[in-house]
Amino acid sequence: MTESDLPVTDFHPYRWGDPAHPAELPAAARETLAAFGVKAPAQAPVAPADVRLPAVALDASALGELAAVVGAEHVSSEHDARLRHTRGWSTPDLLRLRAGDADDAPDAVVLPGSHEEVVALLALCARLNIAVVPYSGGTSVVGGLAPQRAGFAGVIALDLARLDAVLAVDEVSRTATLQAGLRGPRAEQLLREQGFTLGHFPQSYEGASIGGYAAARSAGQSSAGYGRFDDMVVGLVLATPRGTVTLGSAPKSAAGPDLRQLVLGSEGTLGVITSVTVRLRPAPAERVYESWRFDSFEAGADALRRLVQDGPVPTVLRLSDEAETSVNLADPKAMFGAGPGGCLAVTGYEGTAEQVAARRAGASAVLTAAGGELLGTEGGEAWRTGRYRAPYLRDPLLDAGVLIETLETVTFWSNLHRLRAAVTEALSSTLTAQGTPPLVLCHISHLYETGASLYFTVACAQLEDPLAQWQAAKSAANAAIRACGAAISHHHGVGTDHRESYAEEVGPLAVEALQAVKQALDPAGILNPGVLIARSPSASTDSGH
Amino acid sequence: MTESDLPVTDFHPYRWGDPAHPAELPAAARETLAAFGVKAPAQAPVAPADVRLPAVALDASALGELAAVVGAEHVSSEHDARLRHTRGWSTPDLLRLRAGDADDAPDAVVLPGSHEEVVALLALCARLNIAVVPYSGGTSVVGGLAPQRAGFAGVIALDLARLDAVLAVDEVSRTATLQAGLRGPRAEQLLREQGFTLGHFPQSYEGASIGGYAAARSAGQSSAGYGRFDDMVVGLVLATPRGTVTLGSAPKSAAGPDLRQLVLGSEGTLGVITSVTVRLRPAPAERVYESWRFDSFEAGADALRRLVQDGPVPTVLRLSDEAETSVNLADPKAMFGAGPGGCLAVTGYEGTAEQVAARRAGASAVLTAAGGELLGTEGGEAWRTGRYRAPYLRDPLLDAGVLIETLETVTFWSNLHRLRAAVTEALSSTLTAQGTPPLVLCHISHLYETGASLYFTVACAQLEDPLAQWQAAKSAANAAIRACGAAISHHHGVGTDHRESYAEEVGPLAVEALQAVKQALDPAGILNPGVLIARSPSASTDSGH
Repeated sequence: MTESDLPVTDFHPYRWGDPAHPAELPAAARETLAAFGVKAPAQAPVAPADVRLPAVALDASALGELAAVVGAEHVSSEHDARLRHTRGWSTPDLLRLRAGDADDAPDAVVLPGSHEEVVALLALCARLNIAVVPYSGGTSVVGGLAPQRAGFAGVIALDLARLDAVLAVDEVSRTATLQAGLRGPRAEQLLREQGFTLGHFPQSYEGASIGGYAAARSAGQSSAGYGRFDDMVVGLVLATPRGTVTLGSAPKSAAGPDLRQLVLGSEGTLGVITSVTVRLRPAPAERVYESWRFDSFEAGADALRRLVQDGPVPTVLRLSDEAETSVNLADPKAMFGAGPGGCLAVTGYEGTAEQVAARRAGASAVLTAAGGELLGTEGGEAWRTGRYRAPYLRDPLLDAGVLIETLETVTFWSNLHRLRAAVTEALSSTLTAQGTPPLVLCHISHLYETGASLYFTVACAQLEDPLAQWQAAKSAANAAIRACGAAISHHHGVGTDHRESYAEEVGPLAVEALQAVKQALDPAGILNPGVLIARSPSASTDSGH
Repeated sequence: MTESDLPVTDFHPYRWGDPAHPAELPAAARETLAAFGVKAPAQAPVAPADVRLPAVALDASALGELAAVVGAEHVSSEHDARLRHTRGWSTPDLLRLRAGDADDAPDAVVLPGSHEEVVALLALCARLNIAVVPYSGGTSVVGGLAPQRAGFAGVIALDLARLDAVLAVDEVSRTATLQAGLRGPRAEQLLREQGFTLGHFPQSYEGASIGGYAAARSAGQSSAGYGRFDDMVVGLVLATPRGTVTLGSAPKSAAGPDLRQLVLGSEGTLGVITSVTVRLRPAPAERVYESWRFDSFEAGADALRRLVQDGPVPTVLRLSDEAETSVNLADPKAMFGAGPGGCLAVTGYEGTAEQVAARRAGASAVLTAAGGELLGTEGGEAWRTGRYRAPYLRDPLLDAGVLIETLETVTFWSNLHRLRAAVTEALSSTLTAQGTPPLVLCHISHLYETGASLYFTVACAQLEDPLAQWQAAKSAANAAIRACGAAISHHHGVGTDHRESYAEEVGPLAVEALQAVKQALDPAGILNPGVLIARSPSASTDSGH
């Protein structure tokens, strides 16, 4: 898949990415897994058609009222539609579905055709006390699509797939207004036709969509050059149960707090983002990807920090630690093959020929001076073309009896190595204590002048209850992140999985402030209840305004 | 004054800047003014000692409780202290004080010595129903220091001057933690000693302070290269009547909304920012400032847009329109002298010698290709060295009978010329209708990939009631800004002057969301009541939580 291929439209309920291109484990990987004590699970995953769904809680009258807003053909309580809208793409989400558990399935899937229909649906659901899960790409890996249904008449998935237009392109201001249900590849395809790129390529690119990018503060693999998604958004339209909020009268201003940044990252709890206006860049005429070798993670991190602090900054910049370099995740085709040793870094440059040449020369000089050894373009190109493929390996690994998951965090540079050591130790010790010593891989993939993200991949043999097994490791990692004062997520978000850690991170007054905003915009508390923040104590008793 | 001169500490109650360096009108200016029908006012300004202050509303018991928190020597109800903390530096603020009106004077000035004392003061004021004006530099030009006192036992100015330390410098992460009361020049001086710069140089630099930069979303004249203040802040500590909120565990994250951006721009209504952690840059080894001539504002704006969209981006980038160029505000010493005609642009480059050379060569090529004519370094250096001087001219102009004020806005590039025409027309027509045709000057001084700010300077002959005269023009300008869909302020803020326009800009639901946050953090509504947002309908009846 390249940035402008046709989008996938038909995902499997619990297998990553494009069903037409499943991954197979390399033979070398199978040998390594056996050495880790990995054995195939006793039971094969439950087939989608056999997954048990709870009974539909909404009655015909409620379903009829929903249909009256969007048309009967855009409301479904069928098994397949409900199953496809059950939870997201985290390993725990997949493990539950593979075990046949779809308790979090919505009662109905509703597809509005306009912003106005979204507003009408939210008002209706507030009146009928129906919880609403805003759904665009469905790729959450932090439980962002699994709300608490207690106290509600039912739950609907509000799927934005029909809101998939490019509403406007302003070539002078270099902005585009994109509807929330537009998936990444389709948005990119439409913008390229006009000579532009969004430059946003998260690993979930094939499945994720504009609304999710915004609601969950996505960061793409080219964030060094193109910025994070929250950097790109200059305007947005939010549908709430009480009406519409339209924000973004200028790129930046001193007209009060930047309320766009209050909606970005609100994960569907304050309203449904129906469109965003984003900053565009010219589609790059040229691109070069290279790989570099550093003797150690510390040396590589110092070199990358120098680049991002003093420039020139490449479009893509990442560094694998020794363990990840040895596994060669950057090139899944060659996984577990012989690597260059040390730590592998990838640099990518995109832009005009002049820009690419100037930045590449400048950055190469800095990296060389900092001890980097240029390995050439082969490894960089392998990373670029294979970059959406790594997560595809999870399904055959789960099939083979491996427990594999990722997690990520971000901190300031002076705290980076302490954080990496603490999280690695937390994951290793909890899983080793359960008799399943893990492989813990780490990389830096998003860099700022003042700090960087750390992304961990953890793999070990599955126990009989892999959910409980992972939960222990994840809790320990969260505690380590909090103890180091780092953020609980760099780009995955909070969802339900990180809610308690997030509350600790920002403190009780900040949580109350968010609950107050939610109470103002969503007084009935129907939007993604229990996601991001705990339901307000007053939510169940005070639903008027 | 250069960036690292010793700070001014003793400002006049109603004259701009350093009292040791007042400005005088050039002879050419006096001639021009006579042609505009300007006559000196019948009455000289009321001397500071003769300005009438309202009686102190707080009784000895309340003053004693305040003193118990901070020490008696840090509470003052003296005439001079109250007068110096009355309103800010806008022309209406000055006109009122010059007329002897200090109705908005606080009852007492209180200077806490620590974050904990601020928290204790806010809790005390909530209990005693005393309104609090957070005060750091005191340079607001939008009525941000004039709260509504109705319903309160009294008003105090909470002056942060004693919180003036650099608490920490992290050389690896390139961050510093600065207390809110630190004025810009002193912060810069302390950071330069360690080889760093903040790079934040607003026109109010001599008087403004860190807390005000943050609370009002300041943007400095080097924003193209160093960013706006809200770009620099990676962490902050907020004192509220209910306790402390500490934000900023990472440069950027997906851990919920970016709540730092909710506090930045909140103008003291949600809490008192007592310290911020900011991103630093290396102090520049070299700097070059140049001026350029363009045939028209449109041609110059196109050229600057090209630079900011495709690079390389200078550290300082600004463009005066034909009128401003002819008045030569960029070089006050030569004001109203012969200029180069057309439109004057200033480009400044700061950094290492290599960075300056590379950016200067690249940017010059772009500007030349876009029709710019390089005038050399003289005009650029004149702008740089004189850049804090222009506002000093306001006092002798007011003395001479001129009504002079500035206002600013920001929009997307495709809307820029329409906005400039509409605001110019609004100002010209309303003042001409009053018999005082104005001079309206405009420049671009802050640029983004997707848009730019417009800064207007308006001057005409004073009428007998200059406040009413200006209010008519300002209302018309605000209406024009709103009609064009632009932001009501790029860097001055909302205060009380822009409150209604701001409410229109973000809409009633967004205002309710902000009121809800205020209610959560400041249930008694004591913090800057009536600034930024209207007092909530429930504020007077519901002060518990």
